[in-house]
Amino acid sequence: MDGFPLSDIAKDLGGELIGDPALRITRIGPLEGATPSTISHLSNPRYQSQLAGSHAGCVIVGPALRDAAAARGAAIVADDPYLYYARLTQWWAARTRAPAPLGVHASAVIDSSAVLGAGVTVGALAVIEAGARIGDAAVIGAHCVIGADAIVGAATRLAPHVVLGSGCRIGERGIVHSGVVIGADGFGFAPTQGRWEKIEQLGAVRIGDDVEIGANTCIDRGALDDTVIEDGVKLDNLIQIAHNVHIGAHTVMAGCSAVAGSTTIGAHCQIGGAAMILGHITLADHVIISMGSAATRSILKPGQYTGVFPIDDNSAWEKNAATLRQLHALRERVRALEKKTP
Amino acid sequence: MDGFPLSDIAKDLGGELIGDPALRITRIGPLEGATPSTISHLSNPRYQSQLAGSHAGCVIVGPALRDAAAARGAAIVADDPYLYYARLTQWWAARTRAPAPLGVHASAVIDSSAVLGAGVTVGALAVIEAGARIGDAAVIGAHCVIGADAIVGAATRLAPHVVLGSGCRIGERGIVHSGVVIGADGFGFAPTQGRWEKIEQLGAVRIGDDVEIGANTCIDRGALDDTVIEDGVKLDNLIQIAHNVHIGAHTVMAGCSAVAGSTTIGAHCQIGGAAMILGHITLADHVIISMGSAATRSILKPGQYTGVFPIDDNSAWEKNAATLRQLHALRERVRALEKKTP
Amino acid sequence: MDGFPLSDIAKDLGGELIGDPALRITRIGPLEGATPSTISHLSNPRYQSQLAGSHAGCVIVGPALRDAAAARGAAIVADDPYLYYARLTQWWAARTRAPAPLGVHASAVIDSSAVLGAGVTVGALAVIEAGARIGDAAVIGAHCVIGADAIVGAATRLAPHVVLGSGCRIGERGIVHSGVVIGADGFGFAPTQGRWEKIEQLGAVRIGDDVEIGANTCIDRGALDDTVIEDGVKLDNLIQIAHNVHIGAHTVMAGCSAVAGSTTIGAHCQIGGAAMILGHITLADHVIISMGSAATRSILKPGQYTGVFPIDDNSAWEKNAATLRQLHALRERVRALEKKTP
Repeated sequence: MDGFPLSDIAKDLGGELIGDPALRITRIGPLEGATPSTISHLSNPRYQSQLAGSHAGCVIVGPALRDAAAARGAAIVADDPYLYYARLTQWWAARTRAPAPLGVHASAVIDSSAVLGAGVTVGALAVIEAGARIGDAAVIGAHCVIGADAIVGAATRLAPHVVLGSGCRIGERGIVHSGVVIGADGFGFAPTQGRWEKIEQLGAVRIGDDVEIGANTCIDRGALDDTVIEDGVKLDNLIQIAHNVHIGAHTVMAGCSAVAGSTTIGAHCQIGGAAMILGHITLADHVIISMGSAATRSILKPGQYTGVFPIDDNSAWEKNAATLRQLHALRERVRALEKKTP
Repeated sequence: MDGFPLSDIAKDLGGELIGDPALRITRIGPLEGATPSTISHLSNPRYQSQLAGSHAGCVIVGPALRDAAAARGAAIVADDPYLYYARLTQWWAARTRAPAPLGVHASAVIDSSAVLGAGVTVGALAVIEAGARIGDAAVIGAHCVIGADAIVGAATRLAPHVVLGSGCRIGERGIVHSGVVIGADGFGFAPTQGRWEKIEQLGAVRIGDDVEIGANTCIDRGALDDTVIEDGVKLDNLIQIAHNVHIGAHTVMAGCSAVAGSTTIGAHCQIGGAAMILGHITLADHVIISMGSAATRSILKPGQYTGVFPIDDNSAWEKNAATLRQLHALRERVRALEKKTP
Repeated sequence: MDGFPLSDIAKDLGGELIGDPALRITRIGPLEGATPSTISHLSNPRYQSQLAGSHAGCVIVGPALRDAAAARGAAIVADDPYLYYARLTQWWAARTRAPAPLGVHASAVIDSSAVLGAGVTVGALAVIEAGARIGDAAVIGAHCVIGADAIVGAATRLAPHVVLGSGCRIGERGIVHSGVVIGADGFGFAPTQGRWEKIEQLGAVRIGDDVEIGANTCIDRGALDDTVIEDGVKLDNLIQIAHNVHIGAHTVMAGCSAVAGSTTIGAHCQIGGAAMILGHITLADHVIISMGSAATRSILKPGQYTGVFPIDDNSAWEKNAATLRQLHALRERVRALEKKTP
C-alpha cells in the first residue's frame, strides 16, 4: 500500500503536527514492532517506556509528552490521544476497506410489503419478512433474517447471520455482529403440578441509536412490555439480556456478562466480563461491576463493586476454601476468645 | 385493536368473573401503567400495594384478594392467578399473532428422501437433508439446517437459524429459538505427546416432548451413547450442555449456565443463571443451584445450594479477599489462641 | 449393522489381540451396558471394578490389566488404551458415517474471484465472497459465510452456519462447529464526553493447523495486529476470545470460558469451563486454570490455579458469606487477641 501522507491525517483529524508532513504512513500499529511508516499512539502510561526506542514514523501523544515525542521523530499532539487514535482508525477504515457491495443481492428473499430506504444494501440469501422497514443506507448482511414488522434504522449495519425478531426495532448508526439474536422469547413459565406452563412473550425489543452488539449476544423480547436498550450502549460478545431488562444510555458490558429478567441498569455503567446481574434489581447510573462478579442486590450508589474469589495455586485454595466453609464457626470461636480475654 | 370482551376470556379460561363481562380488553399489562382496557394479574405479593392505585380494567387475583380486587373494578378470581395469566398469554397470542405462513417456501432446499408430515411449514432458505423426518404441523424456520436422518416431532417449532445435527431428534410440541446448535461434537480428546487426538463423537442428542431451548444454546452429541434431555425441560439462552449429559424431566436452567460432560441432573431441578455443573457428577431430583454457583461434587439431597462470593464495594472486597488468602493460617492462629486461653 | 471383525481393527490400529480375531464388533460402547458385540475400553481406573462383570465382547486395556481382561474374553492390549480408543472412534467414523456430498451445491453463492481447491465441498446456500481461498478437500457447510479474502486450509471442515470474517484465515485439518463467529470486531472504544467512540478493528484472526472450535464460540479480530490461535488448540462451545489474544499451541479451553483482550496464553495450557482470563495478562506454558476461576493477574509458573467459592447448602453459605464480608475485621480482632495473650 502506498499509504497516506501525515498531512492528510492532520488536515482531517486536527492536532499539532510536528515533523515532515509528507511522511507516508502505511499502517497503524503499536509502538512495539512499529516501522518508519507506522503511526502509533501513546495513551496508556504503561507503554511510555517504549516511546524512545520505538521506530514508529509518527506517534500520537498528549501535550505532556510533546517534547519527548518530538525528540525522536514526527508526532501529532492531541488533547486526547486515545480519542484521536479511535478517530484515526475510522478514517483509515473508510479509506482502506473494500466497500460493501451496493444494492440488493438477487438471492435475498424480501417480502413485497417490506419497505427499503434509499441506498440499502441486502446481502446474499438474507430474508426480510412482511412489513419490515429498513432505513436509508442500512446494510443487512448475508443470511440475516429480519422478522415481520421489524425496523432497522438508517445507516445501521447488520453483519451476516443476525436475527432481528418480529416487531423488534434498532435505531440509527447501530452495528450488530454475526450470530446476534434479538427478540427470542424471554424465559417465562408458570409452575403447575410439577410442569412448566409457557408464558407467551408479547413484548418486543427496542434498541436506540449508536448501539453496538457483539457476536452471538442474545436480547430477549419482553413478556408484556418491551426490553429496552438505550442510545449509545455497547455490548460485547456472548451476552445475555433477559426479558424486560432496561439498559441506560452509554452503558458498556463486556463479553459473557448476563442480566436476568426485569432488571434496570442505569446510564454510563460498566459491567465486566462474565459478570452476572440478578433479576428484578436496579443498578444506579455510573455503577461499575468488576469482571466475574455477581450483583445479587440493587446498587444505588455509583462506584465499583466486586465479588470474585481470589485465584491462588490450587493447594492453597483448597486449604482456604475448606476453612471458608467453617468461617461462621470461626467467628464464633473468636467471639468466645474475646469474652474470655480481659 | 378492538380487543376482546372479558366474557370471552372467562368463558375459555374459567375463573370467577366479577364486573362487566362486556368490558373490552386491548392489552395484557403490569398493574403499574395499566389503563382501563388493560387486564393485569397479581400473583407476587411484592406488588400487592399497587392494586388499589392501578387503573387496570380487570385484575386476575387469587381467592384471598377477591374483595380487595372487586372493590376497585372488574376482577377474575382464579385458584392460581399466575397460571391463569400464563394461559391468558397463550390465548392472547393465538388471537393476535400473525400466523406463520403455511407450506414449504420455494427457496428451501429439501432432500428428496426427507419426509414431511401434514401441515408442515418450512421457511425461506431452510435446508433439510437426506432421511430427515418432520412431524405433522411442525414449523422449520428460515435458514434452519436439519441434518441427515434427524427427527422433529409433531407441532415442534424451530425459529430461524437453528441447526439440528444428523441423527438427532426432538419430540413433540418443542420450541427451539434462533441460533441453537443441537448435535455439535462433544469435546473429547486423548492426550498424546503434548498433542490432542480427536475422539469422534458417535452418539447423538435425544430430546423429549414439550422442551423449550433458548437462543444460542448448545447441546453436544454424545461420545458413544446419546446426550439426553427429558420431557418438559426448559433451557434459557446461551447454555452449554456437554456430551453424555442427562437432564431429567421438567428441570429448568437459566441463561449462561453450563453442564460439563457425563453429568446426570435429576428431574424438577432448577439451575440458576451462569451456574456451572462439573462433569461426571450427579444432582438428585429437586436440587436448586443458585445463580453463579459452581457445583463441583455430586449433590444427592434435594435443597438449595449456593457458592457465590458476596459482592461488596471494591475497596472492602479487596481487603476481605486479601485476608481470604490467609484464612487457613488465620484458623491456625485462632487454634493457637484457644490453646493458650484457659 | 454387520460390524467388523476384531482382526480388522487390530490390523489397522495395532495392539496385541487376545481372543477370537473373527469376533464381529457392531458397536463401541462403555463397559456398562456392553453386549457381546461391543468393544469397550478401560483407561480410567475408576471403572476397573466394572471389568469382570461387563458383557463386552472385547475390552481395550493397558498392559497392567492384560490378565484380568483376558480372563473374561477377547481383549486388545495397548500401551495407551485411551489413545487407542480415540483412534478407534476415528476408524469407526470413517467406515460408518455417510460421506459429505461432494462438490459445490447449486444453491451456494460463490464470487467469481474466489478460488476453490481440488475436491472442495460447499453446502447448500453457503456464501463465499470475493477473493476467498478454499484449500483442497475442505468442506464448507450449508449456510456458511466466508468473507472476502478469507482463507480456509486444506481438509478443514466447517459445519453449517459458520461465519469466517473477511481477511481471516484458518489452517489445515481444522474443525469448526456450527454458529462459530470468527472475525467479528473486537470490543474497543475510546471514551469521550460520556459517550464511546468506536475504534475500528483493523486486524484479523489467524488460526493454525489442527484447531477445533466448538459451537457458537467467538474469536474477535485484532484491533491493529491479528488475534492468533496456534496449532493444535482445542476450543469448546460458547467461548469468547477477545481481540489481540494469543493462544499457544495445544492449549485446550472448556465450554463458556473467556479470554479478555490482549492476553497471551501459553502452550499446553488447560482452561476449565466458565473460567475467565483477564485482559493484558500472560499465562505461562502448562498453566491449568480450574473451572469457574477468574485469572486476574499474570501467572508465570506452571501449575494448577483455582478461585471458586465452595458450594454449600444455602443456609450454611449465607452464614459464611455474611461473615466473609467482615473477614478483614475478624483478622484484626485475632491480632488484638494475640497482643493481649501472653
